[in-house]
Amino acid sequence: MNRPIGVFDSGLGGLTVVKAFLRHLPEEPIVYFGDTARVPYGTKSKETITRFSGEIIRFLKKHDVKMIVIACHTASALALDAVIAEFPGLPILGVVDPASRKAVEMSKTKRIGVIGTRSTISSGSFERAIYGLEPDARVFSAACPLFVPLVEEGWAAGGVADKEVVDRVIHKYIDPLAKEQIDSLILGCTHYPILAERIASALPAGVSLVDPAEETALSARFVLKELGLAVTPAAAAGPAASGSFGAQAGPSPKLKCFVSDDALSFKRLGEVFLGSGIPSVERVVDEEFQTA
Amino acid sequence: MNRPIGVFDSGLGGLTVVKAFLRHLPEEPIVYFGDTARVPYGTKSKETITRFSGEIIRFLKKHDVKMIVIACHTASALALDAVIAEFPGLPILGVVDPASRKAVEMSKTKRIGVIGTRSTISSGSFERAIYGLEPDARVFSAACPLFVPLVEEGWAAGGVADKEVVDRVIHKYIDPLAKEQIDSLILGCTHYPILAERIASALPAGVSLVDPAEETALSARFVLKELGLAVTPAAAAGPAASGSFGAQAGPSPKLKCFVSDDALSFKRLGEVFLGSGIPSVERVVDEEFQTA
Repeated sequence: MNRPIGVFDSGLGGLTVVKAFLRHLPEEPIVYFGDTARVPYGTKSKETITRFSGEIIRFLKKHDVKMIVIACHTASALALDAVIAEFPGLPILGVVDPASRKAVEMSKTKRIGVIGTRSTISSGSFERAIYGLEPDARVFSAACPLFVPLVEEGWAAGGVADKEVVDRVIHKYIDPLAKEQIDSLILGCTHYPILAERIASALPAGVSLVDPAEETALSARFVLKELGLAVTPAAAAGPAASGSFGAQAGPSPKLKCFVSDDALSFKRLGEVFLGSGIPSVERVVDEEFQTA
Repeated sequence: MNRPIGVFDSGLGGLTVVKAFLRHLPEEPIVYFGDTARVPYGTKSKETITRFSGEIIRFLKKHDVKMIVIACHTASALALDAVIAEFPGLPILGVVDPASRKAVEMSKTKRIGVIGTRSTISSGSFERAIYGLEPDARVFSAACPLFVPLVEEGWAAGGVADKEVVDRVIHKYIDPLAKEQIDSLILGCTHYPILAERIASALPAGVSLVDPAEETALSARFVLKELGLAVTPAAAAGPAASGSFGAQAGPSPKLKCFVSDDALSFKRLGEVFLGSGIPSVERVVDEEFQTA
C-alpha cells in the first residue's frame, strides 16, 4: 500500500519543495498542508511555530503519512528538534540539514552564506548544522524580510522598473555577504529560489547557490530507501490500493493539498510555485484542525 | 467604575490607533489585543478574518469591555458587519466608516483615493462607505502589499539608498491614483501613516491625507458620550475601582496589552508604533484564547 509523505509549510512556498519531490520521487504520493490562515512564520517565535508544527503533524498523521517533510525553513529551523521528540517513530525531515550538507560539499573556501527569514536567521540553526559538519567553516547570514513580499508581488518577473527595485533590495541584503567572499549561498526560504537568477547576478561570478528543495528531495529519497518505506515499482504499478492514493490507470492524483484558509486562492497562486496544476485542494474545517 | 475600551488588531499596527485614543480620550482605559501569532490579515479570506475577529472579541469581553474598536483595516473592512451581528448590544466601531466620513468632508472634487492591503481593497468596503455618504464621489483604490514590510524594515527612516527604494515603491503604487487627480487619500492600513510624509511628497501638492486613527478616536469619543459610557472626570479621579483599571495616584497603567505570540518582542517593537513605553504586555495562553 502506498502511504503518502506528509509535507507542510506556512503557506504556498513549500510547493517548490513538492515540485522537487515530484521530480525526484515521482511514485510517492504526497499530502501537503499549507497553513495559509497563519502564514507567514518567519517573524514568529519558536514557541508559536513549534505549536503550529505539532498541530499540523497531528493532522497529517490522520492521513497515515509514513514520513513528514517540513518544507518551511523557519519551522525546520525552530521546531524540528521539538517535533522529533514529540512524535517518536515518525521520520521527520527538515530542509536545514540537507541544504547545509550540500553547501559544505560544494564550498571550496568553507565561507558559506545563508539567507532566510528573521526567525530562521536568529535561530542560528544553519550555523549549528554547518559547524557540525565542518568545524572550520565560516558562516555569514542575513535576514531578508522583503524577499517574500517582492516574490509575491511578482516584481522579479515584472518590467524594468520593478526589476530595478528588486535588484536594489537584493544588493542591500546580499552585498555584506559578498564582501565576506562567500563561495556558496543557501537560499534558506522557499520563496527565494524564484529570485535565484537575480541573486546570482548580484554576486561575484562563481558563487554557487544551494536550493534546499532539491537537496531535501534527494535526502528524503535516501531515507525512505534506508527505512524500507519507498514505493516499490510493483506497488506503484499494482492494483488500486485502498484510500485515495491507490495507483490508478491514467493520470493519478499523487498530490493532495489541504489549507487552513481559502482553497481557491491557494489553487490559483500555488500553481506558480508548483509549476503545474494542483489537482485537489481542500480547506480544513477549523475545529477539526485545531483539535487535530 | 471605569470599564475599558477593547481595541484589537492583527498585530502591532493598531497601536497607532491606541496612540490617537490616548491623545483624544486620555481618561479611557484600554485593553488591546494584537494577534501576533496569526498576523498579517491583509492577504487572508473574509471567512478566516471573521473567525479570528470573533475569537478576539470573545476574549476581550472577558475583560468587561464597554466597546470594541477594530483598529485593523482589513478586519474592519471584512468582518465588521458579521461581528456586529454576532455580538448584539456591544458597540463595535471599525476604522473604515470614520475615515470615509472624513475623506468625504475634506474632498472638494469628490475624487477620493484609498490605499490598503489586498483583502481590504478587494472587499470594496471603502467604496461602499464613501458612496453611501456621497453618491457622486469617485473612488480610486490601490493595494500596496509592500508598504507594511517596508515600514517594518524601517527603510522609510533609513539612509538615502533605503529611502530611494521606498520612494520608488510608493510611486509604483500611487502614481495611478495621482493620474486620476484625487484630492484626498485615505491611508487605509495602520502602518501607512508612518510613510505619510513620503507618500505626500509623491503626490501633487494639495492632496490631503486621511489618517483613520485620528478619525476613529474622535468617533469613539462621540459614540461613548452618546451612549453615556464615557469616563466622567469624577470617576477618572475617584478612588481606586476594583480590577486592574481603577484610577490610582501617580502614573496610571491605562493601557493593558495582550498578544498571541511573544510578549517581549511586541513590547520592544510596539513602542515605535505607540510612540511611548508599553506598560504591560501579556501573552495569552493558546487554549484560553482559542476557546475564548
